Parts: sequence; structure tokens; C-alpha cells
Amino acid sequence: MTQAVQFETQEGRFIGRLDGDTITTAYDAPTPGFIPSAENWAAVEAAAGAAHAVEDVKLLATVRPGKILAIGLNYQTHVEETNLARPDVPVVFAKFPSSVTGPTDDIVIPREETRTDYEGELGLVLSKTGYRISKEAAWDYVGALVVLNDVSGRRAQLETPMRQFTLGKSFDTFTPVSAATKPGSLAEASELQVKTTVSGEVMQDGNTNQLIFDIPSIIEYLSRGTTLEAGDLIATGTPGGVGDERKPPRYLVPGDVVEVEIPGVGSIRNGVRAEDS
Amino acid sequence: MTQAVQFETQEGRFIGRLDGDTITTAYDAPTPGFIPSAENWAAVEAAAGAAHAVEDVKLLATVRPGKILAIGLNYQTHVEETNLARPDVPVVFAKFPSSVTGPTDDIVIPREETRTDYEGELGLVLSKTGYRISKEAAWDYVGALVVLNDVSGRRAQLETPMRQFTLGKSFDTFTPVSAATKPGSLAEASELQVKTTVSGEVMQDGNTNQLIFDIPSIIEYLSRGTTLEAGDLIATGTPGGVGDERKPPRYLVPGDVVEVEIPGVGSIRNGVRAEDS
Repeated sequence: MTQAVQFETQEGRFIGRLDGDTITTAYDAPTPGFIPSAENWAAVEAAAGAAHAVEDVKLLATVRPGKILAIGLNYQTHVEETNLARPDVPVVFAKFPSSVTGPTDDIVIPREETRTDYEGELGLVLSKTGYRISKEAAWDYVGALVVLNDVSGRRAQLETPMRQFTLGKSFDTFTPVSAATKPGSLAEASELQVKTTVSGEVMQDGNTNQLIFDIPSIIEYLSRGTTLEAGDLIATGTPGGVGDERKPPRYLVPGDVVEVEIPGVGSIRNGVRAEDS
Repeated sequence: MTQAVQFETQEGRFIGRLDGDTITTAYDAPTPGFIPSAENWAAVEAAAGAAHAVEDVKLLATVRPGKILAIGLNYQTHVEETNLARPDVPVVFAKFPSSVTGPTDDIVIPREETRTDYEGELGLVLSKTGYRISKEAAWDYVGALVVLNDVSGRRAQLETPMRQFTLGKSFDTFTPVSAATKPGSLAEASELQVKTTVSGEVMQDGNTNQLIFDIPSIIEYLSRGTTLEAGDLIATGTPGGVGDERKPPRYLVPGDVVEVEIPGVGSIRNGVRAEDS
């Protein structure tokens, strides 16, 4: 698989190709991060610049989307644990782009948040701009797959008037994102294991074959009335096992390490700390 | 008052100073639109490039925010008409930046939307990036005031599972925004009339002195846990009189013209059409 990564050295910020523990520099990082167009993938595949060991550079979030469109309640196992009704159309909410952080950065719990939770997910990054994209055409718009954690402050998400999810989903560092992986086939992306561990304990272990609204259906639905732009990020939803629904609840606490792994796509591993530490 | 505007001619896209019906070119428009920093305002005030009549150029949305943070239920008159509880903390939701459109562009109703509504509002554009901004410091971060229409597709906003507002608030063209006005004092911004007319009939006529959460309180609240970035747009809420709460309801229909005016800030005037017209 081909992976693109954004990283920083003393010379600046770059996009490179990630091969195991080695990064080969492709080109200077543009302001919005890596846009997974065919041209940019070709440049990453042809990368022949300076090579670095991963541990010698600062890994950044590879993408900086113009918008993040997130789907809620999209796995039956998650619907069941919440005791909510199975949705008849996708539940759509926003995460602010300023919440994006790198694959090994800390998740920082803000002072006011009392119920910080994890949600491991497959993310889709758009390769090009589109409107009213049909299910049949949808896969052509998926330029990269990423692993992400839809970190959720349940207090802000669920205890504020009108229960709008965005603020509690958008605190700084609340969207760790992996390197970008060049997609194979839609069939492969529809059969990916999504596993989340917290400090070594498996909390979520789902498969994208359990999505209530599959990848083409999500893209078709979201692009009705709303232009999806190159670089936009779609979070496809999380399987059952979130901390808020456990008995007793299992919230993230300082010192935890959260890992989300999707074999064939990649992984992220983020420590947890309090804002004032 | 000093107003900055983004516009397009055959020569390209520019930021200029708007004086009545004349635009004086200041500088080439950057990708994210006008960022209302002190430096950029100085450049607009010193503008001495090509002059154009407003009618000879294409007016664009002056700002293209990295995120739009919108406040719901922030006027008592609007709280009362909705029969919802007065919020004890701000109701926060997102509009996608791709919904932003220019001050005279058409509002386009997507095929699926059956309840398109207007919400005239004062908008605040951030001049610089900040985190945990105190009420006392908040006004220093307000780089521009704008008039905006928080156009709302009530079907998508209110008839979908979990009632997340974002999608219905974020269809393309659903955020018309005026030219950017250099702010005077906080006291002045806290005493602004906000008037919305639809096809000549006054629908909303409120004043920012009726805000439940005032400008400093909004900025302090939003920046707890979330970095507000230069260019971000805050929609401060809408006064009573929205179409959805009228008896009978008054939704926007093709052929309507919606005007929002805030004396001392500016105005927008947008026609309404159906997507397939």
C-alpha cells in the first residue's frame, strides 16, 4: 500500500511517502495539507527527495480538511448500545477542522470536559470536488483512506441545550488522523476491521461491512445540496464499544494511550493528558 | 465606516475598499479571502489601485472562514416563538464554509428541501487566533463585522434523526455574507438594529442589545477548548420572526428577494431560486 504523510523537519514542512519506518520526501507541504488527487499521489509514488527515519521528524496531521462531515449511529452495534432508533437517513454532524491533530500527538482534555470518549473510525478524504455524486461514481471521489479517532466530549455534546454534537466533538486535538493511504477497491474498503484499544484493552472491534449506510450511500447523501470539496474528510461512524455506554462508563483519563488500527489502512496512537498538565 | 470587499474582474480576484458605489483595489485576493488583521485593514484603508463601479465587477463573499461557529436561540424573541427553553449556555452549531456566498448571489433551494427559511444575523470575523479568550480581551479579536443570512433548511435541520442542525444550515449558498466592516467600539456593536425583509415585507427587526449571550460572552465560551483562528466567522444568532414559526409558516420560494440590513455594518440582498431552474 502507498501512504502519504505530512511531516516537519528543521528545513520545513513536507509531504513524503511512508514506507515502514522511512519517509522519502516528495514535495513542500501546501497550506491545506495533502490533497489526495491523482497528481499528488503520482508525486508521492515518485518521491525521491531526502529520506528520514520516522523517529527523526515530527509527524503532522497529513490532511487539513476544509470541512469534516461526520456520520453518527452508523453501526448497528453502536445504535444498540445507545438505545436510540436505527436512523433511516444518515445522522450528519460537523467537527471543526481546527480539531485535527497528528497520528502520535496527545489528546488534550479541556478543563471543563468531564466525559472524554474515543470513537475509532475509517475516514475518507475527497480527491476532487463534486456535487450530487451518484453511488456509482462515489468511489472515484475517494482519494485517500485514513484512520481517525472521533474523540467526543460527552458533557459538551450531550449536556448542553439542543444537544448539538459539534462543540464537544471539536475541541483542539479531538480528531487525531493517520497518514493517508491510497485506496484500493471499494470492495476492500467495505471489509476493513476497525479496532480501538485504550491502554491496551480492546474497546471496539468492528468491521466496515457492518456500516448501516455504506460508503457510496454516504457520499451520495452528503453531496445532495452540499458541494464536497477536494480535501474534505468524511468520518464514517464508529462501531459499538464506546466508553460512555459501558457499565460503568470508561472515559479517557490522563495517562491513557488510545490506539485505533485498521489493517490495510494504518493506525494512530495518542496519549491523553489534561489541559493544564 | 471602512468596508473591505472581495471582487472579481477579468484581471482576477482582489480585495478592495468599498466607498458607496465605488471599489478601490487594495491587493490580490488570497485563497482564504479577506482576513481582517490590522495589517490588512491598513492596506485596505491605503488602497490606491484601480477603481471600479460596483456594478462593473462580480462581488464575491469577502470572507471564506476556516470554520463558522453559529449560536442558536440567542434572542429572547426567537426563544419565545420556538417554545423552547431559554438556554443556560450558548447553543453552538456549525455551518460548513462551503455554504458561504456573496452579498448579491442567489440563494439556491436544493431539490429535497421543503422548508427553506431566513435568519438575519450579525457576524463577527476573527482578526487573529486565540484560545481561552477572556470577556475583557474578546473585542480585540473581532476584526470585522458582517451581515449574514443563516439560511436554514428546516426539513434537513429538524426532520432528520438526532436533529443535528449542520446539514440543513450548510447547503451551498445558505450563508450569504456582506462586505466586511471595520469595527468601531463594542458598545456600538451591542446596539445594532438587525432587520430582515422578504420580498419587501419586514419579517425580523431586532437589536443586538437583546442578545441573551453578548459578544464577549460568546467569544469566551467558544474559545474554551477550541482555538478560534484568524478568519473564523461567528454567527451571533437571529431575532424572532423566522418563517418557520409564523402562522402560517412563510418559507422562501423561488422569486423571493431576501434583504438583511444592519445600519452601520451593511446589507445583503439575495434572490431565491430552485436548484433546477
